[in-house]
Amino acid sequence: MNHTANARSWVEHANGHSDFPLQNLPMGIFSRPGEARRCGVAIGDAILDLEAVLAAGLFDGAAKAAVEATRGGALNAFFALGRSARVALRERLQVLLGEHSEHQAALQAALYPASACQLHVPAQIGDYTDFYVGIEHAKNVGKLFRPDNPLLPNYKYVPIGYHGRASTIRTSGTDVRRPKGQTLPAGHTEPSFGPCARLDYELELGIWIGQGNDMGQAIPIGDAAEHVAGLCLLNDWSARDIQAWEYQPLGPFLSKSFITTISPWVVTAEALEPFRCAQPARPDGDPQPLSYLLDKRDQAAGAFDIELEVLLLTERMREQGAAPHRLTLSNTRSMYWTVAQLVAHHSVNGCQLQPGDLFGSGTLSGATPGSHGSLLEITEGGKLPVELASGEVRKFLEDGDEIILRARCSRDGVASIGFGECRGTVIAAN
Amino acid sequence: MNHTANARSWVEHANGHSDFPLQNLPMGIFSRPGEARRCGVAIGDAILDLEAVLAAGLFDGAAKAAVEATRGGALNAFFALGRSARVALRERLQVLLGEHSEHQAALQAALYPASACQLHVPAQIGDYTDFYVGIEHAKNVGKLFRPDNPLLPNYKYVPIGYHGRASTIRTSGTDVRRPKGQTLPAGHTEPSFGPCARLDYELELGIWIGQGNDMGQAIPIGDAAEHVAGLCLLNDWSARDIQAWEYQPLGPFLSKSFITTISPWVVTAEALEPFRCAQPARPDGDPQPLSYLLDKRDQAAGAFDIELEVLLLTERMREQGAAPHRLTLSNTRSMYWTVAQLVAHHSVNGCQLQPGDLFGSGTLSGATPGSHGSLLEITEGGKLPVELASGEVRKFLEDGDEIILRARCSRDGVASIGFGECRGTVIAAN
Repeated sequence: MNHTANARSWVEHANGHSDFPLQNLPMGIFSRPGEARRCGVAIGDAILDLEAVLAAGLFDGAAKAAVEATRGGALNAFFALGRSARVALRERLQVLLGEHSEHQAALQAALYPASACQLHVPAQIGDYTDFYVGIEHAKNVGKLFRPDNPLLPNYKYVPIGYHGRASTIRTSGTDVRRPKGQTLPAGHTEPSFGPCARLDYELELGIWIGQGNDMGQAIPIGDAAEHVAGLCLLNDWSARDIQAWEYQPLGPFLSKSFITTISPWVVTAEALEPFRCAQPARPDGDPQPLSYLLDKRDQAAGAFDIELEVLLLTERMREQGAAPHRLTLSNTRSMYWTVAQLVAHHSVNGCQLQPGDLFGSGTLSGATPGSHGSLLEITEGGKLPVELASGEVRKFLEDGDEIILRARCSRDGVASIGFGECRGTVIAAN
Repeated sequence: MNHTANARSWVEHANGHSDFPLQNLPMGIFSRPGEARRCGVAIGDAILDLEAVLAAGLFDGAAKAAVEATRGGALNAFFALGRSARVALRERLQVLLGEHSEHQAALQAALYPASACQLHVPAQIGDYTDFYVGIEHAKNVGKLFRPDNPLLPNYKYVPIGYHGRASTIRTSGTDVRRPKGQTLPAGHTEPSFGPCARLDYELELGIWIGQGNDMGQAIPIGDAAEHVAGLCLLNDWSARDIQAWEYQPLGPFLSKSFITTISPWVVTAEALEPFRCAQPARPDGDPQPLSYLLDKRDQAAGAFDIELEVLLLTERMREQGAAPHRLTLSNTRSMYWTVAQLVAHHSVNGCQLQPGDLFGSGTLSGATPGSHGSLLEITEGGKLPVELASGEVRKFLEDGDEIILRARCSRDGVASIGFGECRGTVIAAN
């Protein structure tokens, strides 16, 4: 699989600073106006329609079988085929879209400007699980909710997670209706009902499950990475005032379930291979992972080095034609557990994972100012307003605010790839 | 809709003490060996194959449209049609299966012994939510986990719930593999890994969502009951030792997600109408529900009077041919919130509910000994072993133990109906 920086595509836009060069080839589900949903691959500023390429007879063997599994407007069946199908398709696409391709004319007809297409959630998500593996976030939030014990005793043993709501996962660009709910105003003993006053974003990595497991059959840690089809960006929008009142004793519920936004492109495990890295060393005194979470290869190369960014674009910035304000610059290296450890842990009790299940990583904050992945952390629970380049201030999100998540991987000698954007604009409660 | 006790079916078994008389007619998905899954209705000890009846030309109008929506091996599309479709089908089936039916011969060919059929989860469950509305259970468990504040301050305002795992919901009769996981042995500061040693059942009501709502559009309390297609029994198997270690701060996860068992028949909202009752009066000093949870009609008749029972059948009892031991006798009147309040609360933030979503009520314990819906409560966290009629004792479940949930509704002047069984046998960890 070609990752070298000098591999070029005949799709010229892919050869610049695009998120989607020939070395990326993320998969997604798109539609053109009035047409059915189908599978596409992002290349530069265009989308290659895999069904059209299939109809043109340009796939055979394993790549053809892979594309056939992408039919029907969702990638679940394709994810179920696992790594070999993704590799076969990737290798064929790198030939077809490479600068020496013999099929440019035929492919040109299957290539649409991305701006003319609508993107959709790429799979039917059976279950969505949100983890909590950003240890700096856990510490920062822990301080606000439990000043006496920010990091609970289980944190460094258990990859903490909880079930999330699958029905309200939407793709980038979907408006975020401010939720209503119960909150307990400061100093009161009885709750009020009304629009959330402390609306927040959470910067997370999304993890798409490929092959699943049967109920009752745990996935061993050594096999777990093979069950991940790819990654995306995820904004776990959070109503902090609703959360604070509802979350005891069973965890967040309506404070999160009004919407979760994901970036539409599945950046495959294969495209991300050059950006694997060692799991950051646990600080002295931290326990070793229990054996079902411990694998040498995973420790050596199971983490990812992906730079993450959060931007805020307010109404005033839009009016002024100003650039968005960067709120967060962070990295997936802040994950205390690898994605393989999440898979192994989730299934160790026999829980069945299915192709198209989605995990969220939990908020990925760094340890330093400027790297915090939520306003809750940046403003220390609304105490310290953040000053924006536009002269505005924010404690939490206001109607009209747009949050934009981005991610990019870079390393010497290989092509840099990106994730595309995960955007959402807050609209007033109804 | 006929509920009177004297309405009889030509299916003789339905006229005795069956759970499934002519007045019940619960819907389910079944298959015969080697055949596809399809929709059936339970009548006495038999299942009526609705597709066969459709093929025989015995449905028309709204009832025909309703049966057509049951095709494909899942009831989601039927649930989406809402109450009018259920009523039309029910009325037609009461004619066809009534003692004066003119179509006995044709129907006989579509009637199979239930014992020769396999039953399946009746819908594709998009999301599963587990509530916590059994207030006596909340008090009992609260005492064990938080002796100082058994009932948290939000309990009487917020219908507490959390997202559960949909992928491991199975129907009655599925074996329950003892899960493995992390636990913190008493007196230790580091966790161990191994099979759960404190395996428990939880007696719950299952609630099937009929028509859904669009994301962003709350379901008003006055309409909420209309969004419930029917009820079932639900066993929320729980690994107490795993739960105690993992559940802070985001709630139960692997301690519950290894399996959830439901009874396969959807007892429709229409069949349950005679067993509606007023919501039990809140004790003096309890707050009024907030306005989005308050509806006169719901307060007057939104609760259910359903008797619930849990039986334990051990290996020794099976060997001895002994009857199972009753662990729990309880009633749905112990719910602090109505099902309409659960629907209104769940959607008030704009969360989308979809046809075929499932709610669990939370454990439905009564206030008195013999009415506790889990071993955690019965044995006070494993301190007081329960003595069984077989001479055995139990703190928690052992391999080979089978838990059987049953439910029955009775009222003077109307036919008594039941839910069928929700069974599961514990098998050893692998």
